[in-house]
Amino acid sequence: MSAALLLDLASVAVFAVTGALVAARAQLDPVGFVFVACLTAVGGGTVRDLLLDRPVFWLADPRPVALAGALAMAVFFTHHLLASRIRVIVWLDALALAVAVAAGVAAAHGTGAAPWAQVVMGVVTGCLGGLMRDVVVGEVPLVLRQGELYVTAALAGAVAAVAARTVLGDGWPPALACAATTFALRAGSIRLGWRLPGFRPRPPR
Amino acid sequence: MSAALLLDLASVAVFAVTGALVAARAQLDPVGFVFVACLTAVGGGTVRDLLLDRPVFWLADPRPVALAGALAMAVFFTHHLLASRIRVIVWLDALALAVAVAAGVAAAHGTGAAPWAQVVMGVVTGCLGGLMRDVVVGEVPLVLRQGELYVTAALAGAVAAVAARTVLGDGWPPALACAATTFALRAGSIRLGWRLPGFRPRPPR
Amino acid sequence: MSAALLLDLASVAVFAVTGALVAARAQLDPVGFVFVACLTAVGGGTVRDLLLDRPVFWLADPRPVALAGALAMAVFFTHHLLASRIRVIVWLDALALAVAVAAGVAAAHGTGAAPWAQVVMGVVTGCLGGLMRDVVVGEVPLVLRQGELYVTAALAGAVAAVAARTVLGDGWPPALACAATTFALRAGSIRLGWRLPGFRPRPPR
Repeated sequence: MSAALLLDLASVAVFAVTGALVAARAQLDPVGFVFVACLTAVGGGTVRDLLLDRPVFWLADPRPVALAGALAMAVFFTHHLLASRIRVIVWLDALALAVAVAAGVAAAHGTGAAPWAQVVMGVVTGCLGGLMRDVVVGEVPLVLRQGELYVTAALAGAVAAVAARTVLGDGWPPALACAATTFALRAGSIRLGWRLPGFRPRPPR
Repeated sequence: MSAALLLDLASVAVFAVTGALVAARAQLDPVGFVFVACLTAVGGGTVRDLLLDRPVFWLADPRPVALAGALAMAVFFTHHLLASRIRVIVWLDALALAVAVAAGVAAAHGTGAAPWAQVVMGVVTGCLGGLMRDVVVGEVPLVLRQGELYVTAALAGAVAAVAARTVLGDGWPPALACAATTFALRAGSIRLGWRLPGFRPRPPR
Repeated sequence: MSAALLLDLASVAVFAVTGALVAARAQLDPVGFVFVACLTAVGGGTVRDLLLDRPVFWLADPRPVALAGALAMAVFFTHHLLASRIRVIVWLDALALAVAVAAGVAAAHGTGAAPWAQVVMGVVTGCLGGLMRDVVVGEVPLVLRQGELYVTAALAGAVAAVAARTVLGDGWPPALACAATTFALRAGSIRLGWRLPGFRPRPPR
């Protein structure tokens, strides 16, 4: 199994769980859990593949959708065990983002896209699944929450992946550099309140 | 005219009317009616065709867009005659869903997709037009309303279509089995409050 | 540089500024500005290119994304100088719409699409970027605001472009006819309250 496919499957799995937990907050039924989990899990990668004019990664291969569906059902039967769904959603989302950005960069690299386009595809793959999840259930998108690093973390991770490939070569180094950078920035933002210098909330006009 | 195209046109027509009625609730002008009607009417089928890498069904053929536009205008001039727009929207949406799921399965079958992918495309074609309609005007998506069978009805109908093709052969049997299953489940949910066993609303955390 | 590409770049630039101003209203950080600006700037043209099965216009060429990003940063550092962000957003959006509709018609003409499909692609290119911008940040879409000409202006401009090409030939005449028509109708709607005859708000049911 290639590194790119493995990354896609890992991000599908973690995003599916976040989607199912959001479905739990919206009190959907089991099939609603599966629907939101699948949308979240494959949404970002699907947009990436449409933009790159590749075959959509989950259509040639039943595993991603089956995995997302199975995890959604598992969450349906266990989510009442969680003490705080929101906290778990935020942290799992950070993990899924880290993996999905790496998957996006790897997939774009595989089609011969230019380095800047690989960076854009990393951000697209990482951010759009979670954005769709939140828009569909009518929540404020986590992606755009004020004063948190989110797109910034995805962008830094994608740049790290491209830099690591140039310096250390292909395969796992770019994926690891990307996931570590993205997750570290998201974790610093969630836990320590890191934000971009110069961000000063002003009243909207 | 092929069964697949006829199903696409029928679902376009019924979804267009639901889109126009939602535009009436949002008090849009005639061109707004046409815009929301077209988005609802062709939205699900468009996503399906992009995913399957087929030519978008309404671009090669002016009839779907013309039909949706004409029906939107008809609704603009007559919607004040309805006693209850919401009730009509919900029932027409159930009918449109039934036809659109059948159209989605038929189109995916036509491209040689695997049975599980036909089921996914049936759900995508059925659910995404109405989802776009509701997200765009800022309503809670009917697709995700709590404690109702919606995605479930679409999923059961798509499975029925694939099963009916295996047993009874190609052509109208899968379409009829699909539409009947989907509509029966939606109708039971709307009228009799059918819901999935095990669905127990809990307060969100 | 071809007229079609020049129109795409111009609409990218103006839509990017509106996206960044909406990000300012939502109090996002600099990377959030860039994200919303890029989404708004290339959203409509991207959907158009996916529908027409053309390569996505900003993937082969780093300029549109670079331009949108640079303008987003410029807005980040200067938006506090504006006396009224909403007024600027509405007027710039009118300008961007005028250019984007012309760009959409030109691109569709370039792929040999039928005249009615060129009109649809003009409306899609013009309206979908702004629609995504507003849906993502949770505002009521400007596209669907009650009692204003918006989709109507886009539709009239797209029809004007096709008519001008028939009468006056290819190149700048259709673009100018389109932009002038679209902007004039939007401006009349914003400034003078123009609306479609027959639009009479009724209470929603």
